[in-house]
Amino acid sequence: MPAMTRAVVLLSGGLDSTVTMARAKEEGYMLYPLSFDYGQRHKKELECAGKIARYYEAQEHKILKIDLGQIGGSALTDVSIAIPEKRDLEEIGEDIPATYVPDRNTILHTLALGYAEVMKADAIFIGANALDYSGYPDCRPEYFEAFQKVAELGTKAGVEGRAIVIKYPLINMTKAEIVKEGTRLNVPFHLTWSCYYGQEKACGKCDSCLLRMKGFKEAGITDPIEYIKSGGGA
Amino acid sequence: MPAMTRAVVLLSGGLDSTVTMARAKEEGYMLYPLSFDYGQRHKKELECAGKIARYYEAQEHKILKIDLGQIGGSALTDVSIAIPEKRDLEEIGEDIPATYVPDRNTILHTLALGYAEVMKADAIFIGANALDYSGYPDCRPEYFEAFQKVAELGTKAGVEGRAIVIKYPLINMTKAEIVKEGTRLNVPFHLTWSCYYGQEKACGKCDSCLLRMKGFKEAGITDPIEYIKSGGGA
Repeated sequence: MPAMTRAVVLLSGGLDSTVTMARAKEEGYMLYPLSFDYGQRHKKELECAGKIARYYEAQEHKILKIDLGQIGGSALTDVSIAIPEKRDLEEIGEDIPATYVPDRNTILHTLALGYAEVMKADAIFIGANALDYSGYPDCRPEYFEAFQKVAELGTKAGVEGRAIVIKYPLINMTKAEIVKEGTRLNVPFHLTWSCYYGQEKACGKCDSCLLRMKGFKEAGITDPIEYIKSGGGA
Repeated sequence: MPAMTRAVVLLSGGLDSTVTMARAKEEGYMLYPLSFDYGQRHKKELECAGKIARYYEAQEHKILKIDLGQIGGSALTDVSIAIPEKRDLEEIGEDIPATYVPDRNTILHTLALGYAEVMKADAIFIGANALDYSGYPDCRPEYFEAFQKVAELGTKAGVEGRAIVIKYPLINMTKAEIVKEGTRLNVPFHLTWSCYYGQEKACGKCDSCLLRMKGFKEAGITDPIEYIKSGGGA
């Protein structure tokens, strides 16, 4: 890879996207983190993303506003659908949860592709992983291979032979492995936010908290963030 | 196809999308036209789309607001880039024009996919065509084949074996053939708008007007809309 090539990094402010940001930095890319204000119930994730972007001295932190609530159909953007709480961990990943926003990830990836083309970036880093993917279909390797084809065939950059490469370095890692990789890369775990809720402390009960807590526990590493209900569920 | 299945139809208010709407109706679908308010310089297209939706007695006309100007990089959303005028017709389709919005079509198609999933639609109709495609890479059949794969692999519907089918019935038609097809289907040409500008009459000079005028001329059919400069260019 030539020096000073650019990477757009999808940065939600969560654990996985922050470890992915660290990987892009390790690979020598100039960092262009991209976050989405998509009608989430809370803005805490975005605040964390901003802190992480500053921590990594990113070139520019872009926040794209998109109202996915207009489409509807998910507990994360539609207040009439309850966020599931306290599911058994065994259930996570087996069915498609109510927090699934129809086609959300593809919408975000596609916006990232447009932004990457404008910024003349060579790569897009995405922190998806297939093992702890919580039942989202658009977190699987075969999905990303199809999306790479769209990037090659559907963009000016692709047609001109400079197709933007979609990178998803965590795709085959368990949450514990992601925590270990983050530890190796000195990721500022204390700045990351995984909880579906935007309270001062993480709830410790939602799917996302449960997966995170399990990951840190299995990795044998202490999670520096505070939980309302410590040790619950896992 | 079972009776009363639903189709999302991308409806810009232009000639091609209106002929596509007529095709979806002919095929017996319940019509869910979808338009985008994406920071166009003018709203005339959207007004026309509304009239066309009412003409076809659509179930619901959804308008999704998305600010593509946030991404930048195109003459259609960025006022600092001039729209090209008066290019020779031979040039159209040879290079990628300044009106190309990076990744725009894929962004719109992906939003349509999410909406189709929420509405439990079976198909999405898109009025793209490859012959008069004006140099946009995301109007080619191979691009749509790749996008169909994303629809199959990246959505809940696809994973559950109810993949939404992407239909692009005009893909291999010339503009003249589209005009003839519209005539066969009694399309209300007088309600459609193709011009890049939003004046009372079409400019007759932009790429889109030139292609439309050429199409009607070659089809031997009179275009019922008025042009500021009649007969120019073609």
